[in-house]
Amino acid sequence: MPKAVYLAGPEVFLSNAREILNAKIVLTREAGLIPISPGDLEFPKTDSKWELGLAISHIDEQLMNSADAIIANLTPFRGLAADTGTCFELGYMCAQGKDVFAYTNVKADHGERTRDYFGGVWSTDANGLPRGPDGMLIEDLGFIDNLMLHGGVVRRGGTVSIGDAPADALFTDLTAFKEVLAVAAGKLR
Amino acid sequence: MPKAVYLAGPEVFLSNAREILNAKIVLTREAGLIPISPGDLEFPKTDSKWELGLAISHIDEQLMNSADAIIANLTPFRGLAADTGTCFELGYMCAQGKDVFAYTNVKADHGERTRDYFGGVWSTDANGLPRGPDGMLIEDLGFIDNLMLHGGVVRRGGTVSIGDAPADALFTDLTAFKEVLAVAAGKLR
Repeated sequence: MPKAVYLAGPEVFLSNAREILNAKIVLTREAGLIPISPGDLEFPKTDSKWELGLAISHIDEQLMNSADAIIANLTPFRGLAADTGTCFELGYMCAQGKDVFAYTNVKADHGERTRDYFGGVWSTDANGLPRGPDGMLIEDLGFIDNLMLHGGVVRRGGTVSIGDAPADALFTDLTAFKEVLAVAAGKLR
Repeated sequence: MPKAVYLAGPEVFLSNAREILNAKIVLTREAGLIPISPGDLEFPKTDSKWELGLAISHIDEQLMNSADAIIANLTPFRGLAADTGTCFELGYMCAQGKDVFAYTNVKADHGERTRDYFGGVWSTDANGLPRGPDGMLIEDLGFIDNLMLHGGVVRRGGTVSIGDAPADALFTDLTAFKEVLAVAAGKLR
Protein backbone atom coordinates (compact mmCIF):
# COMPACT_ATOMS: atom_id res chain seq x y z
CA MET A 1 0.00 0.00 0.00
CA PRO A 2 1.61 3.31 -1.06
CA LYS A 3 2.08 5.94 1.63
CA ALA A 4 0.21 9.24 1.50
CA VAL A 5 2.10 12.53 1.71
CA TYR A 6 0.57 15.90 2.66
CA LEU A 7 2.04 18.62 0.42
CA ALA A 8 2.19 21.71 2.64
CA GLY A 9 3.22 25.14 1.44
CA PRO A 10 2.20 28.66 0.46
CA GLU A 11 1.58 27.68 -3.19
CA VAL A 12 -2.15 27.80 -2.37
CA PHE A 13 -1.84 31.60 -2.49
CA LEU A 14 -0.34 31.76 -6.02
CA SER A 15 -2.34 33.13 -8.95
CA ASN A 16 -1.46 29.85 -10.70
CA ALA A 17 -1.94 27.74 -7.56
CA ARG A 18 -3.81 24.95 -9.36
CA GLU A 19 -1.01 24.57 -11.92
CA ILE A 20 1.80 24.36 -9.34
CA LEU A 21 -0.15 22.09 -6.99
CA ASN A 22 -0.98 19.81 -9.92
CA ALA A 23 2.71 19.66 -10.88
CA LYS A 24 3.59 18.60 -7.30
CA ILE A 25 0.74 16.07 -7.29
CA VAL A 26 1.94 14.48 -10.56
CA LEU A 27 5.56 14.29 -9.34
CA THR A 28 4.45 12.71 -6.05
CA ARG A 29 2.42 10.05 -7.91
CA GLU A 30 5.38 9.36 -10.22
CA ALA A 31 7.49 8.82 -7.09
CA GLY A 32 5.12 6.04 -6.02
CA LEU A 33 3.40 7.99 -3.26
CA ILE A 34 -0.18 9.24 -2.81
CA PRO A 35 -0.32 13.05 -2.90
CA ILE A 36 -2.62 14.81 -0.43
CA SER A 37 -2.95 18.46 -1.30
CA PRO A 38 -4.38 21.18 1.00
CA GLY A 39 -8.06 21.96 0.59
CA ASP A 40 -7.71 25.76 0.40
CA LEU A 41 -8.63 25.69 -3.27
CA GLU A 42 -11.88 23.78 -2.90
CA PHE A 43 -13.93 26.32 -1.00
CA PRO A 44 -16.86 24.80 0.87
CA LYS A 45 -20.14 26.77 0.92
CA THR A 46 -20.28 28.85 4.08
CA ASP A 47 -22.26 31.86 5.35
CA SER A 48 -19.27 34.07 6.13
CA LYS A 49 -15.51 34.49 5.63
CA TRP A 50 -15.06 33.44 9.24
CA GLU A 51 -16.93 30.14 8.69
CA LEU A 52 -14.97 29.61 5.47
CA GLY A 53 -11.68 29.89 7.37
CA LEU A 54 -12.83 27.44 10.03
CA ALA A 55 -14.04 25.01 7.35
CA ILE A 56 -10.69 25.06 5.52
CA SER A 57 -8.86 24.62 8.85
CA HIS A 58 -11.03 21.56 9.53
CA ILE A 59 -10.52 20.10 6.03
CA ASP A 60 -6.75 20.58 6.12
CA GLU A 61 -6.47 18.96 9.55
CA GLN A 62 -8.50 16.00 8.33
CA LEU A 63 -6.25 15.70 5.28
CA MET A 64 -3.22 15.69 7.56
CA ASN A 65 -4.82 13.07 9.81
CA SER A 66 -5.21 10.85 6.73
CA ALA A 67 -1.58 11.28 5.61
CA ASP A 68 1.47 9.22 6.59
CA ALA A 69 3.96 12.00 5.99
CA ILE A 70 4.43 15.67 5.18
CA ILE A 71 6.68 17.55 2.78
CA ALA A 72 6.66 21.16 3.99
CA ASN A 73 7.70 24.04 1.75
CA LEU A 74 9.48 26.37 4.18
CA THR A 75 10.59 28.91 1.56
CA PRO A 76 10.46 32.39 3.18
CA PHE A 77 7.05 33.91 2.47
CA ARG A 78 6.34 37.66 2.53
CA GLY A 79 9.33 38.37 4.72
CA LEU A 80 12.16 36.57 6.38
CA ALA A 81 10.48 33.37 7.57
CA ALA A 82 8.31 30.49 6.38
CA ASP A 83 4.53 30.64 5.88
CA THR A 84 2.96 30.40 9.34
CA GLY A 85 0.23 27.98 8.20
CA THR A 86 2.87 25.58 6.88
CA CYS A 87 4.78 25.85 10.19
CA PHE A 88 1.60 24.94 12.09
CA GLU A 89 1.13 21.94 9.80
CA LEU A 90 4.71 20.73 10.22
CA GLY A 91 4.31 20.86 14.01
CA TYR A 92 0.98 19.07 13.73
CA MET A 93 2.51 16.19 11.77
CA CYS A 94 5.57 15.99 14.06
CA ALA A 95 3.27 15.57 17.07
CA GLN A 96 1.46 12.73 15.31
CA GLY A 97 4.75 10.87 14.84
CA LYS A 98 4.42 11.00 11.06
CA ASP A 99 7.40 11.05 8.68
CA VAL A 100 8.44 14.66 8.12
CA PHE A 101 10.38 16.29 5.29
CA ALA A 102 10.94 19.91 4.31
CA TYR A 103 12.55 22.11 1.70
CA THR A 104 13.27 25.74 0.93
CA ASN A 105 14.01 27.54 -2.31
CA VAL A 106 16.27 30.08 -0.57
CA LYS A 107 19.91 29.24 0.06
CA ALA A 108 20.63 31.88 2.74
CA ASP A 109 19.98 30.36 6.17
CA HIS A 110 17.90 31.85 8.98
CA GLY A 111 20.79 33.67 10.66
CA GLU A 112 21.94 35.25 7.39
CA ARG A 113 18.39 36.30 6.43
CA THR A 114 17.79 37.82 9.88
CA ARG A 115 20.98 39.89 9.58
CA ASP A 116 19.76 41.03 6.15
CA TYR A 117 16.39 41.92 7.72
CA PHE A 118 18.26 44.28 10.07
CA GLY A 119 20.22 45.76 7.14
CA GLY A 120 23.36 44.02 8.33
CA VAL A 121 23.26 45.91 11.66
CA TRP A 122 23.85 43.58 14.58
CA SER A 123 26.17 43.13 17.56
CA THR A 124 27.47 40.44 19.86
CA ASP A 125 26.22 40.29 23.45
CA ALA A 126 28.15 39.40 26.62
CA ASN A 127 27.52 35.69 25.96
CA GLY A 128 28.86 35.91 22.42
CA LEU A 129 25.39 35.69 20.87
CA PRO A 130 24.33 37.86 17.92
CA ARG A 131 21.57 40.40 18.55
CA GLY A 132 19.74 42.83 16.26
CA PRO A 133 19.57 46.60 16.81
CA ASP A 134 16.37 46.00 18.83
CA GLY A 135 18.38 43.85 21.27
CA MET A 136 16.57 40.67 20.27
CA LEU A 137 18.51 37.46 19.72
CA ILE A 138 19.37 36.40 16.17
CA GLU A 139 19.01 32.62 16.04
CA ASP A 140 22.08 31.65 14.05
CA LEU A 141 22.44 27.88 14.26
CA GLY A 142 22.80 26.99 10.58
CA PHE A 143 19.11 26.12 10.23
CA ILE A 144 16.82 27.24 7.42
CA ASP A 145 14.29 28.68 9.89
CA ASN A 146 13.45 28.57 13.62
CA LEU A 147 15.10 25.58 15.33
CA MET A 148 11.75 23.96 16.14
CA LEU A 149 11.08 23.49 12.41
CA HIS A 150 14.45 22.38 11.10
CA GLY A 151 15.24 20.52 14.35
CA GLY A 152 11.85 18.79 14.37
CA VAL A 153 12.54 17.36 10.91
CA VAL A 154 16.19 16.38 11.48
CA ARG A 155 15.55 14.78 14.89
CA ARG A 156 12.92 12.52 13.28
CA GLY A 157 15.34 11.33 10.63
CA GLY A 158 13.76 13.50 7.96
CA THR A 159 15.60 15.48 5.31
CA VAL A 160 15.63 19.22 4.60
CA SER A 161 16.52 20.05 0.98
CA ILE A 162 17.91 23.50 0.25
CA GLY A 163 17.41 24.98 -3.21
CA ASP A 164 18.54 28.26 -4.72
CA ALA A 165 15.72 29.41 -6.98
CA PRO A 166 15.73 32.73 -8.85
CA ALA A 167 13.68 35.43 -7.11
CA ASP A 168 10.93 35.30 -9.75
CA ALA A 169 10.51 31.54 -9.29
CA LEU A 170 10.59 31.39 -5.50
CA PHE A 171 7.26 29.57 -5.26
CA THR A 172 7.20 27.81 -8.62
CA ASP A 173 10.69 26.26 -8.86
CA LEU A 174 10.39 22.55 -7.98
CA THR A 175 14.08 21.58 -7.89
CA ALA A 176 14.35 21.30 -4.09
CA PHE A 177 10.90 19.71 -3.91
CA LYS A 178 11.97 16.99 -6.37
CA GLU A 179 15.14 16.39 -4.37
CA VAL A 180 13.39 15.89 -1.04
CA LEU A 181 10.57 13.94 -2.70
CA ALA A 182 13.12 11.40 -3.97
CA VAL A 183 14.47 10.98 -0.42
CA ALA A 184 10.95 10.69 1.00
CA ALA A 185 9.98 8.11 -1.62
CA GLY A 186 13.05 6.00 -0.81
CA LYS A 187 12.19 6.07 2.89
CA LEU A 188 8.43 5.56 2.60
CA ARG A 189 8.27 2.87 -0.08
CA MET B 1 -4.23 18.51 40.33
CA PRO B 2 -3.55 21.86 38.60
CA LYS B 3 -3.15 21.78 34.82
CA ALA B 4 0.17 22.65 33.19
CA VAL B 5 0.33 25.31 30.46
CA TYR B 6 3.15 25.69 27.93
CA LEU B 7 3.91 29.40 27.46
CA ALA B 8 4.94 29.70 23.80
CA GLY B 9 6.18 32.90 22.20
CA PRO B 10 9.11 34.89 20.87
CA GLU B 11 9.91 36.41 24.27
CA VAL B 12 12.84 33.97 24.45
CA PHE B 13 14.63 36.28 21.99
CA LEU B 14 14.27 39.46 24.12
CA SER B 15 17.30 41.03 25.80
CA ASN B 16 15.24 40.88 29.02
CA ALA B 17 13.79 37.43 28.21
CA ARG B 18 14.24 36.10 31.75
CA GLU B 19 12.33 39.04 33.23
CA ILE B 20 9.35 38.75 30.86
CA LEU B 21 9.20 34.95 31.07
CA ASN B 22 9.33 35.19 34.87
CA ALA B 23 6.45 37.68 34.83
CA LYS B 24 4.36 35.25 32.72
CA ILE B 25 5.34 32.36 35.01
CA VAL B 26 4.25 34.26 38.14
CA LEU B 27 0.93 35.29 36.56
CA THR B 28 0.26 31.70 35.46
CA ARG B 29 0.90 30.39 38.99
CA GLU B 30 -1.35 33.09 40.45
CA ALA B 31 -4.07 31.89 38.05
CA GLY B 32 -3.87 28.43 39.64
CA LEU B 33 -2.03 26.77 36.73
CA ILE B 34 1.45 25.25 36.41
CA PRO B 35 3.61 27.30 34.02
CA ILE B 36 5.87 25.43 31.62
CA SER B 37 8.30 27.79 29.92
CA PRO B 38 10.38 27.01 26.81
CA GLY B 39 13.90 25.76 27.40
CA ASP B 40 15.67 28.15 25.03
CA LEU B 41 17.20 30.00 27.94
CA GLU B 42 18.75 27.00 29.65
CA PHE B 43 21.37 26.04 27.08
CA PRO B 44 22.52 22.43 27.37
CA LYS B 45 26.24 21.70 26.81
CA THR B 46 26.77 20.72 23.19
CA ASP B 47 29.66 20.45 20.75
CA SER B 48 28.22 22.73 18.07
CA LYS B 49 25.52 25.27 17.31
CA TRP B 50 23.77 22.59 15.26
CA GLU B 51 23.67 20.18 18.22
CA LEU B 52 22.51 23.02 20.48
CA GLY B 53 19.55 23.68 18.18
CA LEU B 54 18.58 20.01 18.10
CA ALA B 55 18.89 19.80 21.91
CA ILE B 56 16.59 22.79 22.44
CA SER B 57 14.11 21.37 19.90
CA HIS B 58 14.11 18.11 21.90
CA ILE B 59 13.71 19.87 25.26
CA ASP B 60 10.85 22.08 24.03
CA GLU B 61 8.98 19.11 22.53
CA GLN B 62 9.34 17.22 25.83
CA LEU B 63 8.04 20.26 27.72
CA MET B 64 5.03 20.38 25.37
CA ASN B 65 4.45 16.65 25.82
CA SER B 66 4.28 17.24 29.58
CA ALA B 67 1.80 20.13 29.30
CA ASP B 68 -2.01 20.00 29.25
CA ALA B 69 -2.44 23.22 27.31
CA ILE B 70 -0.67 25.98 25.41
CA ILE B 71 -0.98 29.76 25.40
CA ALA B 72 0.69 30.90 22.18
CA ASN B 73 1.88 34.49 21.70
CA LEU B 74 1.12 35.11 18.01
CA THR B 75 2.15 38.78 18.00
CA PRO B 76 3.73 39.53 14.59
CA PHE B 77 7.48 38.99 14.90
CA ARG B 78 10.03 40.63 12.57
CA GLY B 79 7.49 41.19 9.84
CA LEU B 80 3.85 40.62 9.18
CA ALA B 81 3.26 37.22 10.78
CA ALA B 82 3.76 35.28 14.00
CA ASP B 83 7.03 33.68 15.11
CA THR B 84 7.42 30.46 13.13
CA GLY B 85 8.62 28.44 16.12
CA THR B 86 5.49 29.40 18.06
CA CYS B 87 3.33 28.40 15.05
CA PHE B 88 5.01 24.99 14.99
CA GLU B 89 4.32 24.61 18.70
CA LEU B 90 0.65 25.58 18.39
CA GLY B 91 0.20 22.97 15.64
CA TYR B 92 2.03 20.41 17.76
CA MET B 93 -0.31 20.94 20.72
CA CYS B 94 -3.43 20.98 18.49
CA ALA B 95 -2.45 17.56 17.11
CA GLN B 96 -2.09 16.21 20.64
CA GLY B 97 -5.65 17.26 21.44
CA LYS B 98 -4.49 19.61 24.18
CA ASP B 99 -6.36 22.78 25.19
CA VAL B 100 -5.14 25.65 23.03
CA PHE B 101 -5.24 29.41 23.57
CA ALA B 102 -3.54 32.30 21.79
CA TYR B 103 -3.11 36.05 21.90
CA THR B 104 -1.60 38.89 19.93
CA ASN B 105 -0.51 42.38 20.93
CA VAL B 106 -1.39 43.81 17.51
CA LYS B 107 -4.95 44.91 16.79
CA ALA B 108 -4.74 44.95 12.96
CA ASP B 109 -5.79 41.57 11.62
CA HIS B 110 -3.93 39.43 9.08
CA GLY B 111 -5.70 40.85 6.02
CA GLU B 112 -5.06 44.44 7.11
CA ARG B 113 -1.41 43.76 7.92
CA THR B 114 -0.87 42.01 4.57
CA ARG B 115 -2.31 45.02 2.72
CA ASP B 116 0.06 47.22 4.74
CA TYR B 117 2.92 44.90 3.78
CA PHE B 118 2.12 45.64 0.12
CA GLY B 119 1.95 49.39 0.85
CA GLY B 120 -1.80 49.33 0.41
CA VAL B 121 -1.45 48.14 -3.21
CA TRP B 122 -3.83 45.28 -3.95
CA SER B 123 -6.63 44.35 -6.32
CA THR B 124 -9.64 42.08 -6.53
CA ASP B 125 -9.51 39.00 -8.77
CA ALA B 126 -12.26 37.48 -10.94
CA ASN B 127 -13.56 35.55 -7.90
CA GLY B 128 -13.76 38.69 -5.77
CA LEU B 129 -10.70 37.73 -3.73
CA PRO B 130 -8.01 40.26 -2.74
CA ARG B 131 -4.55 39.78 -4.26
CA GLY B 132 -1.26 41.60 -3.76
CA PRO B 133 0.77 43.19 -6.59
CA ASP B 134 2.60 39.84 -6.93
CA GLY B 135 -0.72 38.16 -7.75
CA MET B 136 -0.70 36.12 -4.55
CA LEU B 137 -3.88 35.79 -2.50
CA ILE B 138 -4.33 37.97 0.58
CA GLU B 139 -6.02 35.82 3.21
CA ASP B 140 -8.60 38.24 4.59
CA LEU B 141 -10.93 36.26 6.82
CA GLY B 142 -10.87 38.37 9.98
CA PHE B 143 -8.26 36.15 11.63
CA ILE B 144 -5.16 37.37 13.44
CA ASP B 145 -2.88 35.19 11.29
CA ASN B 146 -3.09 32.27 8.85
CA LEU B 147 -6.41 30.40 9.19
CA MET B 148 -4.71 27.21 10.40
CA LEU B 149 -3.58 29.04 13.56
CA HIS B 150 -6.64 31.08 14.49
CA GLY B 151 -8.98 28.36 13.16
CA GLY B 152 -7.15 25.62 15.04
CA VAL B 153 -7.69 27.47 18.32
CA VAL B 154 -11.31 28.52 17.74
CA ARG B 155 -12.40 25.09 16.45
CA ARG B 156 -11.11 23.52 19.67
CA GLY B 157 -13.12 25.89 21.84
CA GLY B 158 -10.06 27.96 22.71
CA THR B 159 -9.93 31.73 22.91
CA VAL B 160 -7.81 34.24 20.99
CA SER B 161 -7.27 37.52 22.85
CA ILE B 162 -6.42 40.60 20.82
CA GLY B 163 -4.46 43.39 22.47
CA ASP B 164 -3.29 46.75 21.19
CA ALA B 165 0.14 47.33 22.71
CA PRO B 166 2.31 50.35 21.92
CA ALA B 167 5.04 49.61 19.36
CA ASP B 168 7.81 49.79 21.97
CA ALA B 169 6.05 47.23 24.20
CA LEU B 170 5.05 44.72 21.52
CA PHE B 171 6.74 41.80 23.28
CA THR B 172 6.61 43.02 26.87
CA ASP B 173 2.99 44.19 27.27
CA LEU B 174 1.08 41.44 29.11
CA THR B 175 -2.48 42.83 28.85
CA ALA B 176 -3.70 40.35 26.21
CA PHE B 177 -1.78 37.52 27.89
CA LYS B 178 -3.54 38.23 31.21
CA GLU B 179 -6.90 38.29 29.43
CA VAL B 180 -6.48 34.92 27.74
CA LEU B 181 -4.84 33.45 30.86
CA ALA B 182 -7.99 34.25 32.85
CA VAL B 183 -10.11 32.43 30.24
CA ALA B 184 -7.71 29.47 30.20
CA ALA B 185 -7.70 29.26 34.00
CA GLY B 186 -11.50 29.23 34.09
CA LYS B 187 -11.60 26.41 31.58
CA LEU B 188 -8.74 24.31 32.96
CA ARG B 189 -9.44 24.57 36.68
